[in-house]
Amino acid sequence: MMRLSQLMLPDIEQAFSADPTSVGELFEDLHAEDVADIVERAPAELAPNLLASLEPGRAADVLECIEPHRQVDLVQRLGVSRAVKIIDEMASDDRADFVAELPHDFAEALLAAMDPVEEADVRSLVRWPEDTVGSVMSTDSLTVPVEMSVGEVIERVRTVGQEAETVYYVYVVAGSDKLVGVVSLRDLILCNPREAVASIMAEDVKSIGPEADQEEAATLIQHYDLIALPVVDDAYRLLGLVTIDDVVDVIEEEATEDMHLMAAVQPLDDSYFGTGFWTFVTKRAPWLIALFVGGQFTANAMTWYDDVTRHTAALILFLPLVISSGGNSGSQSAAIIIRALAVGEVDLSHAAKVLFREIAVGLVLGILLAIIGLIRVFLGADDLNLALTLGVTLIAVVTLGTVLGAMLPILLERLGLDPAVSSTPFIASLVDLLGIVTYFSLARLLLM
Amino acid sequence: MMRLSQLMLPDIEQAFSADPTSVGELFEDLHAEDVADIVERAPAELAPNLLASLEPGRAADVLECIEPHRQVDLVQRLGVSRAVKIIDEMASDDRADFVAELPHDFAEALLAAMDPVEEADVRSLVRWPEDTVGSVMSTDSLTVPVEMSVGEVIERVRTVGQEAETVYYVYVVAGSDKLVGVVSLRDLILCNPREAVASIMAEDVKSIGPEADQEEAATLIQHYDLIALPVVDDAYRLLGLVTIDDVVDVIEEEATEDMHLMAAVQPLDDSYFGTGFWTFVTKRAPWLIALFVGGQFTANAMTWYDDVTRHTAALILFLPLVISSGGNSGSQSAAIIIRALAVGEVDLSHAAKVLFREIAVGLVLGILLAIIGLIRVFLGADDLNLALTLGVTLIAVVTLGTVLGAMLPILLERLGLDPAVSSTPFIASLVDLLGIVTYFSLARLLLM
Repeated sequence: MMRLSQLMLPDIEQAFSADPTSVGELFEDLHAEDVADIVERAPAELAPNLLASLEPGRAADVLECIEPHRQVDLVQRLGVSRAVKIIDEMASDDRADFVAELPHDFAEALLAAMDPVEEADVRSLVRWPEDTVGSVMSTDSLTVPVEMSVGEVIERVRTVGQEAETVYYVYVVAGSDKLVGVVSLRDLILCNPREAVASIMAEDVKSIGPEADQEEAATLIQHYDLIALPVVDDAYRLLGLVTIDDVVDVIEEEATEDMHLMAAVQPLDDSYFGTGFWTFVTKRAPWLIALFVGGQFTANAMTWYDDVTRHTAALILFLPLVISSGGNSGSQSAAIIIRALAVGEVDLSHAAKVLFREIAVGLVLGILLAIIGLIRVFLGADDLNLALTLGVTLIAVVTLGTVLGAMLPILLERLGLDPAVSSTPFIASLVDLLGIVTYFSLARLLLM
Repeated sequence: MMRLSQLMLPDIEQAFSADPTSVGELFEDLHAEDVADIVERAPAELAPNLLASLEPGRAADVLECIEPHRQVDLVQRLGVSRAVKIIDEMASDDRADFVAELPHDFAEALLAAMDPVEEADVRSLVRWPEDTVGSVMSTDSLTVPVEMSVGEVIERVRTVGQEAETVYYVYVVAGSDKLVGVVSLRDLILCNPREAVASIMAEDVKSIGPEADQEEAATLIQHYDLIALPVVDDAYRLLGLVTIDDVVDVIEEEATEDMHLMAAVQPLDDSYFGTGFWTFVTKRAPWLIALFVGGQFTANAMTWYDDVTRHTAALILFLPLVISSGGNSGSQSAAIIIRALAVGEVDLSHAAKVLFREIAVGLVLGILLAIIGLIRVFLGADDLNLALTLGVTLIAVVTLGTVLGAMLPILLERLGLDPAVSSTPFIASLVDLLGIVTYFSLARLLLM
């Protein structure tokens, strides 16, 4: 993508030093995202002044596009009195996320300076734990009483629409704010203004509770092709909205988490360069150490077979090959099943079906590798028994790897854990151990 | 999620056998997605009749929610004359995808029975290769001439809005259909109907070409928080739209592809159970065989060190541990970097920065494992030189694994390949080989 910021920054620095108020004009025709890009690349002293030179609503749009750890820095440089004007204009979900990132004292100072209604809104949102629906919802939904006509609803959209997270769905409430229906702006436009909103609203409103996992909200929005999903309390009162752009973020976040877990990395909360060096080490070291300590069993296992390796030294040559084949086939199955579980193609009810299928796939793959392995040994050593040992071991290890790789994620899901935690190195380590035992046990049987 | 279909199916079967026309009523208040669920679970003879009993527009909504390989089966059972009524009503992007899935003869029969305009639309869409913007775009965009007033545009939305993929953005064209602006339905509602649309439209319209990668469209939509992105030809004429729900699918698809590639599986085109047994084998076997054949070098490498292993047999005990540590640290880095490249946190300009960082992380992790390894050897064997060999090898192998794991994806990206192809088993195999060479070379130096 072309970086506008690289082109415009020198002009902007010059304009700002000549006349600070002229900068707003330069930014006028740009997307908030592009302005954010410029502000992010501006020198540290200039950036807060650029932001402050914008009209507060526009500054809020720009601020929302900036990376979390840069946001915090920028707003602290702005100071409470200039910051509060911008913060007031932010979308409620982004604002709450942002305040949660701030150092405690600065956050309290900001909240104290805010309008009490907005302050209460922030406080009501920040209390939801990470990864819950509450933590990603916005409170800026547009509700209308069920008694209104279509024309009145459109009028309401006109007057308060600028504030709402989305005006594409209008939520219809009755009595003490109970959610009774939803109507899309599309339908409102298409209908006669004199009709009652009650007669055109959809009553089967999909909704979710604030304590639910954000992944559930993402699944519902995808499944029903929604733009927004209302969040309701036990009495079915509207608390907020999860919108489809939140879903995009949730899906990306969850995929990143799964990929990291699969590779035995504790998921990073920040971007690659946003994560500090020691955080990196602590996200990786525990798993690596656990795998290393677990891997010690392979050394133990090998001492059990001293007699075998002394008898046929050539066995050792193929050991790395045998165990990596098991590990590789295990990684394949694990990746396929972990992903299939994540996107809902496979669930617990399919365990037996997956098991049989993976046994068959494992056998076929194992036989393929065994044939190649046999050719290799015959070309090299011309030792029938060694070839047989190697062949049978490959079939066993690849089948075992395939089955373990597929079934461990399902077992973890069954136990209520994240299937991605059955990280592929973990499966590889387990298969290493089983590979060594199989290989040398077979060798003892066939070669001695 | 509760399965409505399990509850309703018996009632529906009964209603259908009593009076086929009564089924439409039972479905009336349900989401298309729920009806699709019921149709998917209905017996094979009943399913097409259920679909045919719905009004065509509704049937099209339902059909769009059904899994691709079930869709094909269902529509073939419907037959051309009943199918064409439903197909006519489908969203253009879903329809093109669907026709592309059909057996060639049936597809041609359907196209011949379609309205010529609709037929041309399908043919214009199916020609785009997979993964391009053209292959996911919809042609149902809403355009208005730049001369219109806001009130006229709203009137246009009212009359033709039912057909459009999204009415939330209206595209403004001038002259020979050149895209000159965009206006959101939100802005239309908020403005004075007598104002000219030209005065309220945004002129800086983000757009993309049809040959671009679908991932690029996804990135633009996310970056600029759009609901839809216009697709234009070289003359800036509007060809279609990519909408945010397509982005959700693209992001999921790409994450699945990356996870599969990272585990050395050729990405599956279908769901787990939608993929045939032999397809599965052919998606996995080539990589597994390649890794196996590549792994043969480990056996070769080990013969070079016959003298070393004969001299100190205990070296062999720790071999699996040494090489798996390198592989594990390599997998960690690879997963982190592949993902960071995919979401745009890291790009080629960061190569040097990543290199230095990963060298440092690798050294720290290697030293940690070496310390644990040393303790292990001292507790077991009390052999200082063996301990030293093991420790230095661990530091070297873990650092090497970490750096290779991080840099190979960046190298592949530089070469214009998919970084995820540097699948972690591939990195592990490479590190296996380097681990063996390092380990035994050091041993020759220190122990002999």
